[in-house]
Amino acid sequence: MEDISKNIPQICVPITGVSEAEIMEQLAIVLTVQPDIIEWRADFFEALDDTACVDILLSKMAEQTKVPILFTVRSEKEGGQAISISDDEVVSLLVHLSKHKALTYIDYEIANTEDAIGLVQEACAKHGKLLILSHHNFTETPDTAILVEKAQQAEKYGADFAKLAVMPQSRKDVTRLLHATSQIDELLHIPVITMSMGELGAITRVVGWVHGSAITFAVGVEASAPGQIAVQPLREAIEATKALTTW
Amino acid sequence: MEDISKNIPQICVPITGVSEAEIMEQLAIVLTVQPDIIEWRADFFEALDDTACVDILLSKMAEQTKVPILFTVRSEKEGGQAISISDDEVVSLLVHLSKHKALTYIDYEIANTEDAIGLVQEACAKHGKLLILSHHNFTETPDTAILVEKAQQAEKYGADFAKLAVMPQSRKDVTRLLHATSQIDELLHIPVITMSMGELGAITRVVGWVHGSAITFAVGVEASAPGQIAVQPLREAIEATKALTTW
Repeated sequence: MEDISKNIPQICVPITGVSEAEIMEQLAIVLTVQPDIIEWRADFFEALDDTACVDILLSKMAEQTKVPILFTVRSEKEGGQAISISDDEVVSLLVHLSKHKALTYIDYEIANTEDAIGLVQEACAKHGKLLILSHHNFTETPDTAILVEKAQQAEKYGADFAKLAVMPQSRKDVTRLLHATSQIDELLHIPVITMSMGELGAITRVVGWVHGSAITFAVGVEASAPGQIAVQPLREAIEATKALTTW
Repeated sequence: MEDISKNIPQICVPITGVSEAEIMEQLAIVLTVQPDIIEWRADFFEALDDTACVDILLSKMAEQTKVPILFTVRSEKEGGQAISISDDEVVSLLVHLSKHKALTYIDYEIANTEDAIGLVQEACAKHGKLLILSHHNFTETPDTAILVEKAQQAEKYGADFAKLAVMPQSRKDVTRLLHATSQIDELLHIPVITMSMGELGAITRVVGWVHGSAITFAVGVEASAPGQIAVQPLREAIEATKALTTW
């Protein structure tokens, strides 16, 4: 996916509050650093099982900002919090929320069943939400062929973005992830989002866009994954680099 | 070559004056931006055929600064100026200058004969100069296998640094050069210096160090190759990125 280079990367900041009060407080702080996208990591939310409550809170968030909101229920298996609703209920919630005006993006994991992904994808397409199909590995950086395959699967399933977040065990894993990003960016017709996690991988959050990564996740109030960097210095480093080149 | 990451990249600024006056004037300007290395592109110098004159000018330069000096006679074939001395005379000059206290680095091209490289390498090793064996391609970015081979050749010839400067014809060539840099950095026991030239490749001058490139060339007074960036914003962009990570 070429030619969107001048708009990437978008900086996305997660909100990880447990209660409504905490979420709204984090939102207020996050807005001061002017992110391009706000991710509500709703797996942290204590009332995730109360759809009406989620609806209302989303509307309240949208009243505070025009910054696009990404709704994510990260599974425990892929680094999220334990939640009180079942896999099927997550699907129902996402299908329901695809109609919510406050949302721009919905994240769902590639590891889900093809049927579940189909339902979420169909709802997103119908209601104009952008679907990020994601894959996380907190242990290692899978072989490049597997990374490519995951990203291609996301595209095949009708995602608008393919996201891969992996853990490096060496410097080589980090540069390999960057190279895989270039390869995937070239193969896919949708944008890719990648990051190598942890302190070792943090460099990918700053330079991943050079290789085509469309969104970088940064810390607003609390990190939602290891290695995230604060928004303002991250933006400054990216802008300082972009200003010097036509990349 | 790992573990020198905290010292890289060094920023090298070329001096391209024709006359002694011009060279000393450029030096004064270049010193204000505090480069890590100063490259005297002596192929621009009008009195290159007068060894005594080169000797004296080098001493004069060294009186002005403690910044390490790199002496380069870039060949016309690899992007340099037409010069008034023969290939053999260049070898003699470099062998002679290897004894000059003012110099830290000497650049010589991998494309020279094995005998000529042997003479220069031997002199550098004997007198404690760091030898950069370089390869330039102003037309294209050769296959990665060829880039790797050139770098390995430099190491085999006893270089202290292997330098590859190539021209991209596409964005893919640029990311491929970065990937090749990672590969070479891993294969070699000496540091590698790479750049993708021109406006398209300029990004590699800012982020090449992430992939292991040890020196980046920036503009002091006049660019000596297409795509070079001014020192200060380049250093700021690199420092802003380094400050965020342990890379």
